[in-house]
Amino acid sequence: MASMSGFPEFLPEGRVVEARAVDILRSVFELHGFAGIATRALEPLDELSRKGDITKEVYVVRRLHATESEPDALGLHFDLTVPFARYVREHAGHLAFPFRRYQIQPAWRGERPQEGRYREFWQADIDIVGDGVLAGHHDAEVVAVMLAACARLRDELGLPPVLVRLNNRKLVQGFYGTLGVADPLAAIQITDKLAKIGADGVTAGLAAQGIAPEAIGRILAFASVHTTGDLAAALVAVGITVADGPMAEGLAEVTALHEALRADFPGAVMIDCAIARGLDYYTGSVFEMELVGSESLGTICAGGRYDSLARDGNRTFPGVGISFGLTRVFAPLITQGVLVASRAVPSAVLVAVDTPETRGQAEAVARALRARGVPTEVSPDAPKYGRQIRYADRRGIPYVWFGGLSGEVKDIRTGDQAAADATTWLPPAADLVPTIGPGPAGAPAARW
Amino acid sequence: MASMSGFPEFLPEGRVVEARAVDILRSVFELHGFAGIATRALEPLDELSRKGDITKEVYVVRRLHATESEPDALGLHFDLTVPFARYVREHAGHLAFPFRRYQIQPAWRGERPQEGRYREFWQADIDIVGDGVLAGHHDAEVVAVMLAACARLRDELGLPPVLVRLNNRKLVQGFYGTLGVADPLAAIQITDKLAKIGADGVTAGLAAQGIAPEAIGRILAFASVHTTGDLAAALVAVGITVADGPMAEGLAEVTALHEALRADFPGAVMIDCAIARGLDYYTGSVFEMELVGSESLGTICAGGRYDSLARDGNRTFPGVGISFGLTRVFAPLITQGVLVASRAVPSAVLVAVDTPETRGQAEAVARALRARGVPTEVSPDAPKYGRQIRYADRRGIPYVWFGGLSGEVKDIRTGDQAAADATTWLPPAADLVPTIGPGPAGAPAARW
Repeated sequence: MASMSGFPEFLPEGRVVEARAVDILRSVFELHGFAGIATRALEPLDELSRKGDITKEVYVVRRLHATESEPDALGLHFDLTVPFARYVREHAGHLAFPFRRYQIQPAWRGERPQEGRYREFWQADIDIVGDGVLAGHHDAEVVAVMLAACARLRDELGLPPVLVRLNNRKLVQGFYGTLGVADPLAAIQITDKLAKIGADGVTAGLAAQGIAPEAIGRILAFASVHTTGDLAAALVAVGITVADGPMAEGLAEVTALHEALRADFPGAVMIDCAIARGLDYYTGSVFEMELVGSESLGTICAGGRYDSLARDGNRTFPGVGISFGLTRVFAPLITQGVLVASRAVPSAVLVAVDTPETRGQAEAVARALRARGVPTEVSPDAPKYGRQIRYADRRGIPYVWFGGLSGEVKDIRTGDQAAADATTWLPPAADLVPTIGPGPAGAPAARW
Repeated sequence: MASMSGFPEFLPEGRVVEARAVDILRSVFELHGFAGIATRALEPLDELSRKGDITKEVYVVRRLHATESEPDALGLHFDLTVPFARYVREHAGHLAFPFRRYQIQPAWRGERPQEGRYREFWQADIDIVGDGVLAGHHDAEVVAVMLAACARLRDELGLPPVLVRLNNRKLVQGFYGTLGVADPLAAIQITDKLAKIGADGVTAGLAAQGIAPEAIGRILAFASVHTTGDLAAALVAVGITVADGPMAEGLAEVTALHEALRADFPGAVMIDCAIARGLDYYTGSVFEMELVGSESLGTICAGGRYDSLARDGNRTFPGVGISFGLTRVFAPLITQGVLVASRAVPSAVLVAVDTPETRGQAEAVARALRARGVPTEVSPDAPKYGRQIRYADRRGIPYVWFGGLSGEVKDIRTGDQAAADATTWLPPAADLVPTIGPGPAGAPAARW
């Protein structure tokens, strides 16, 4: 039985890590007032094809015994933004705007599995959408909330520091306009691959778009600009002046976004004109995050402002959002044993069973412990105590209980054993739930 | 934009109810030492077809641009038991047996949507599997854990009392054997529909199997037996004697299971010889639960013992499990407004903004509150206070904060307003997270 490539699945001790990451993200999102929603896995195919270039990777779904004439009408969603836009249009009459939502679910893409690419992958998204208008400060807000989530993941799971790169579509498209580029979006999708295909690849791609060599040179000069200071000055330094109109508007927006973030997150934010994002729905701010020292993991968060993704007749719902790539970040760490849980089971205590006839006494002990929140299981059978201790040890269960309500409890890590009352005894807080830390594969700092 | 029939999706205030139910189930399962796992949504089609009669409802999945020759190889899982059996076989070398797992995920079936039937539905499953052997007391254990979960759902969400009906496949198949029924499984799948199609329907179905009228009469007499007392005596009362072999073995097992449960759950457990479960993989205990007074919701939990669902060459993993139908139970209650959350957002506090220039001060207040676990959002804009209070009111946010860290906080339900320090103030615990209770559609007791 071979596992299916591109569909990561974890052992119970790995799932503890993944579930903890989800709990942390959910907790931070809720602390910031984002409401959780869940959308169905399936969407009408015409809903999924609005974005164009990813359509080819969609998984189509039909009933096994569908009749010949039954069309392929449904597909698995390939991200959480498109279903969210559909959800907003469908339920707009019942939502209060600006609507702040988080959504933590899997998505599916029929891509060739490779390093960092999965066919089933979990994402954790936050978005804020307005009805007709949405103030610009929400762009900084979604980035700040995701940075707060990353800080909690750093404190609790050892996530390395994050670097955010900011840019703005109006700035990029406005600049391409000054160069007379006929199809700015196509040019953006090519230059977005700069880090992957290099300057030569981008040059060839842009030339194929009919862009003149001199304009290509200026595009590459533009993409080389990154700064933690004054963007206008940095552009001038490579010979680019900011034209009035969209380009100036985009410059003002990205500068304001940068200003809003850098005071609270010093050293974690920069403007990078190479950032573009390939998706066609972005209309203003765009942002990406990577892990400092673990850039090989790629982009762990990405998002931006979209002014008309959700539109219903004359009504539009401008939004801004950011997505955390849960599977992309955690699957390698779990699979390689970089992050491990202290035990594969929730149980903090195993209650030993003396004889099959006294199982009821052991169950009474377990009930008393569970009533005060202590995860407990009862030994499945009644062999010698040594075997029951090995049963606990194999699972990482730290305590074994012997006897009845007034019994004895052994910390099997130290061998310490003491009398204890099951109606009052509690393990140390640190033993109540599995802890997560560096595994045999090495400290996270060294392996992220 | 019409919603898709059979794919329930909730507004944020409904999702609060569903997420709370999931949290409660997860908490109870972990208290009892069950490890959480998640399996991929897709399985190879040949894996999904092992069970035979449900295959026709499977959703097949393929890449949109798959080549003609690429076979339909994948399908969405239609329950969580089959993926779990595959998971156990695939990872057996890394699991400690008996392996106790819970799994809370959606499943998909291409059935015609109707009352109580969904095409996408969430289930919450617990199972215990052994390596080669699994002690009988685990049958009672999984039922008891699910009853503990239902008790928590009763205390926190008003779930009505549960009635468990127990039976045993060996008893049923052994009895059918004494009647000379050629295909006991086919007969079981027919009699399992007794509640739906009535005695006439079952009689016609069994007659079509070539079963003689006298044997059909005895089968119906057997299915009429239900008791909270002595099963052997109840069978004798309708003229059925227990034959040695499987029938006697099944009688002993179901009697022991009943004994093990009725002391702890008085009035909640009975033996019902009409219970059979249609699935072919059950080999011993079978059980179903319904809500007392809300029987129209149908079976809310079901499960049983399977001795060879998970098999790998000569190695078998006998198991016992039970599944809670989350969507079946909660979707009608959420959709009809029987259960509602006190607010649609997590936020307990809205921090008012005086002017766009003092947004930073409001954000500092929000940070101070969140640092102590108070879900908080900042007003999206800075209109008159009355409009900001209405913003909070529309979302059910109970508190509005005015001013800086040393400011004032208003309970907008009572109008009470008092000075407060954002570094020390906490709302009452009852206001920290949304509460869930009966909605305008009526008290749960009257509408479940």
